[in-house]
Amino acid sequence: MKLIIGNKNYSSWSLRPWLALKAFSVPFEEIELRLFTDDFYSELVKHSPVGKVPVLVDGDINVWDSLAICEYLNENHLDNRGWPENKNLRAEARSYVAEMHSGLFAVRGEMPMNCRGKKKIFLSSEAKKEVEWLDNTWAKLRTQNEIKGDYLFGEFSLADAFFAPIVFRFATYGIEVSEQSKDYLKTMLAHPAMQEWLKSAEAEDAVIDVAEVGEAV
Amino acid sequence: MKLIIGNKNYSSWSLRPWLALKAFSVPFEEIELRLFTDDFYSELVKHSPVGKVPVLVDGDINVWDSLAICEYLNENHLDNRGWPENKNLRAEARSYVAEMHSGLFAVRGEMPMNCRGKKKIFLSSEAKKEVEWLDNTWAKLRTQNEIKGDYLFGEFSLADAFFAPIVFRFATYGIEVSEQSKDYLKTMLAHPAMQEWLKSAEAEDAVIDVAEVGEAV
Repeated sequence: MKLIIGNKNYSSWSLRPWLALKAFSVPFEEIELRLFTDDFYSELVKHSPVGKVPVLVDGDINVWDSLAICEYLNENHLDNRGWPENKNLRAEARSYVAEMHSGLFAVRGEMPMNCRGKKKIFLSSEAKKEVEWLDNTWAKLRTQNEIKGDYLFGEFSLADAFFAPIVFRFATYGIEVSEQSKDYLKTMLAHPAMQEWLKSAEAEDAVIDVAEVGEAV
Repeated sequence: MKLIIGNKNYSSWSLRPWLALKAFSVPFEEIELRLFTDDFYSELVKHSPVGKVPVLVDGDINVWDSLAICEYLNENHLDNRGWPENKNLRAEARSYVAEMHSGLFAVRGEMPMNCRGKKKIFLSSEAKKEVEWLDNTWAKLRTQNEIKGDYLFGEFSLADAFFAPIVFRFATYGIEVSEQSKDYLKTMLAHPAMQEWLKSAEAEDAVIDVAEVGEAV
């Protein structure tokens, strides 16, 4: 099984399925292609007929889009353990992830993921609202009585994989959050797979200015 | 089990889980609230602590966001039959749905769903590209050899529920598509549940001008 991703420093959508595979110890071959280069598409087509990253290639099956990949992994490689076992928490995890998947435009636009960068920024009122939503969501989930464990729903789940690019953003842009959310940020940043991603991102060439990045993939 | 939705004429996100429930003959109580009215939130809170529509309330479980609701239904009420059985098609269906869930902004913005309206419009180049993507996707899926049946993946699936609001848009805005896509539009518009939705939409009061609608929920 191959996962084709973009530059680790910038490709927030790539981080999600990559982290899911790593955190659940599913073996895979990683193929990292350089975004914003002329031969990106000619390289991509060697590995998958789908002109997008991230894409998971499992035999003759191609799955693209980070959420579809996560649901595919849950069903075919994680024995349904990708989401919390408890039915209520499972529904809640999927709801938050879906909400994030189709939203958070201000945070994406104003705070492009740049793992190795450190930068203070001024946020629009829309971005501030989204940051507040994220902070409140994390704090709420971490204080729910039925959740035992360091992650949003106890044990690491696909929800954490989905929030991972936000974790890097909050850390690099120095976003102020509640104590509960701070604990969550610490937990996530200390995850061995997050550290591995960060190390690779730091070793990459800086090919472009972060301001140009936006949310290309 | 209750599904809380917005006005049938306008609420494209509500249509998706509603159609999934109807098409798969899952019994549910429908609660339709009037968007854009002062007492929308006070009505909503009577049925669910989640301040959003659509929301599925199944006992003490709340699921919001159309995609999360569809995955929840697939797992808990459809015995996993919501997506195509064939593993390749299943992955493809989830990929297209996820892509649509996080995209198609021009189509959403320029062609708000208005089931009972008939209107010719000029589309931006971005919207034209999205329309082409939709048309090509439908035509491709309908001509794939392994797919037998009138819907995108053979039998009706959650993918069709997801494309349903686009079907109404293409019909009301008179969008030109390929022959294969025309067949698909016809199939979808003839579905008894689509007809039922349309009839209810036509019976609703026109409370607002469609130009104001956008994609509020």
